[in-house]
Amino acid sequence: MKLVAVGTVAFDSIETPFDRRDRVVGGAATYITLTAAHFVRPVGLISVIGDDFPQAFLSEMERRGIDLEGLQVRQGEKSFFWSGKYHYDLNSRDTLATELNVLAAFSPEVPADYSATDFLMLGNLAPAVQMRVIEQIPERPRLVVLDTMNYWMDTALDELKAVIAKVDVITINDEEARQLAGEYSLVRAARKILSMGPRYLIIKKGEHGALLFDQHNIFFAPALPLEDVADPTGAGDTFAGGFVGYLAQTQNISFENMKRAVIVGSAMASFTCEKFGPERLLELTKEEINERIEQFVALTDFEIYVED
Amino acid sequence: MKLVAVGTVAFDSIETPFDRRDRVVGGAATYITLTAAHFVRPVGLISVIGDDFPQAFLSEMERRGIDLEGLQVRQGEKSFFWSGKYHYDLNSRDTLATELNVLAAFSPEVPADYSATDFLMLGNLAPAVQMRVIEQIPERPRLVVLDTMNYWMDTALDELKAVIAKVDVITINDEEARQLAGEYSLVRAARKILSMGPRYLIIKKGEHGALLFDQHNIFFAPALPLEDVADPTGAGDTFAGGFVGYLAQTQNISFENMKRAVIVGSAMASFTCEKFGPERLLELTKEEINERIEQFVALTDFEIYVED
Repeated sequence: MKLVAVGTVAFDSIETPFDRRDRVVGGAATYITLTAAHFVRPVGLISVIGDDFPQAFLSEMERRGIDLEGLQVRQGEKSFFWSGKYHYDLNSRDTLATELNVLAAFSPEVPADYSATDFLMLGNLAPAVQMRVIEQIPERPRLVVLDTMNYWMDTALDELKAVIAKVDVITINDEEARQLAGEYSLVRAARKILSMGPRYLIIKKGEHGALLFDQHNIFFAPALPLEDVADPTGAGDTFAGGFVGYLAQTQNISFENMKRAVIVGSAMASFTCEKFGPERLLELTKEEINERIEQFVALTDFEIYVED
Repeated sequence: MKLVAVGTVAFDSIETPFDRRDRVVGGAATYITLTAAHFVRPVGLISVIGDDFPQAFLSEMERRGIDLEGLQVRQGEKSFFWSGKYHYDLNSRDTLATELNVLAAFSPEVPADYSATDFLMLGNLAPAVQMRVIEQIPERPRLVVLDTMNYWMDTALDELKAVIAKVDVITINDEEARQLAGEYSLVRAARKILSMGPRYLIIKKGEHGALLFDQHNIFFAPALPLEDVADPTGAGDTFAGGFVGYLAQTQNISFENMKRAVIVGSAMASFTCEKFGPERLLELTKEEINERIEQFVALTDFEIYVED
């Protein structure tokens, strides 16, 4: 397997200031795998659902090269459910309901086929679950990428720090970076977080773009200014899926290639915002993806010569 | 004269969460001309001060190639004074006091030497004053750049719209763009503002960078992630001064060159944030400026090849 991802597969009810949808398919691993499968196949999925999850969606995932051997289906139980309401700026939201359901007792099982994966994406989930996935993969993957959120910093900081110490790349948003490091300046926060284990840090700033740090370099990728944002749900997971999917496709983990991967992740995230749930990811063509990447080049490209 | 700028020359008292300074020299035209003079000289200054303004600072401005013929000195009156207090994020602030003093009855007089200027920068000031400068320059400059703020949208919208209709470039922040256009999406807001007259719009997003729009293109320049921000006062004016100063130096107003000018403006603004008031602008060397511009190249440069 070139890429394995763990995370939630779920139902989301989403309300924006302009529209709403009830019980659309969502979850971090849904967005990650659907995005990554545009770049690399097969993608192994480790997650859990109840018997209420639509078979048609699972078949569509398989058709797209997502391997479901690591997806547990719990008969007589319900899938994870989240509902949220976005504020007018579409950059912040309130959680209205979280029903853990099958997630409450989830113990991931990594199939034998997944255990020699090159790339491992730990989608947002309890750090203890992420750790159990790491522990079941005896040969260390070439690159382990971790996404997490402030909820785990508030409720499971020690477990989270243990996971952080074992990964190569961590992706979090700007507020979370500040919280994790206890530093307001993102440059100072980055230095502290890089001292916790990871070699690379990506700070996601939503509509304000993303920053990639290593010990010596900073790279900035903008978000594409969009005419309309329908629903930003899953944009961060889509970013992670595009980032790790591109790296797994190109098999190159240099800083130069990570910069490209951040651009690809940003491009993919811009699509997810255009429609509700993962809808846009399901209809995307290769031509649209390439065109969007070219838009990022046009958006940021300049040449300047400084006199000596 | 290659470049003429109008705006305030003033005293500022500034409080940040970490430090404070009383009555440092400030004002939009101070930052604009001190910045632009790093790129083009002489720079004509149109403004007004009282007899309380330090002669040493005026001499320093002249030494730097700033022509003070358009600077009125009102005997027995006091210079414009502003005081403000920054919030913890250093991205928002409260105004504590505004004393108009000499500004209350300011009627700009454009010296004969300034009336054939190539570039005209209308710094933030009452739109009626900006308009009187435009009217005193019989031969239209090659490029007129306008900076303004929400205060004038609230109190003098008609006068402001009349000025906007006469300029080539307008620079405002994201909230002001939304207010002026009545559109939340910056892409929609940009389209509306470009229909009001200007051919170019720059939306300044502070620590989140700046967007340059024309009818067909968008360019994004990041802000440099800084380890520490001492005082962001004047950063927007510095940006404008670097932008128009670079254009006046290079005598090239293509979109490609405006992209470079936005990078230069962003680089100069990053310096201003490093110390209180215009202090950093006064000590800057050409080598530091070039090095900072190279940092922006490193921050944003990537190469990606998409398969067809």
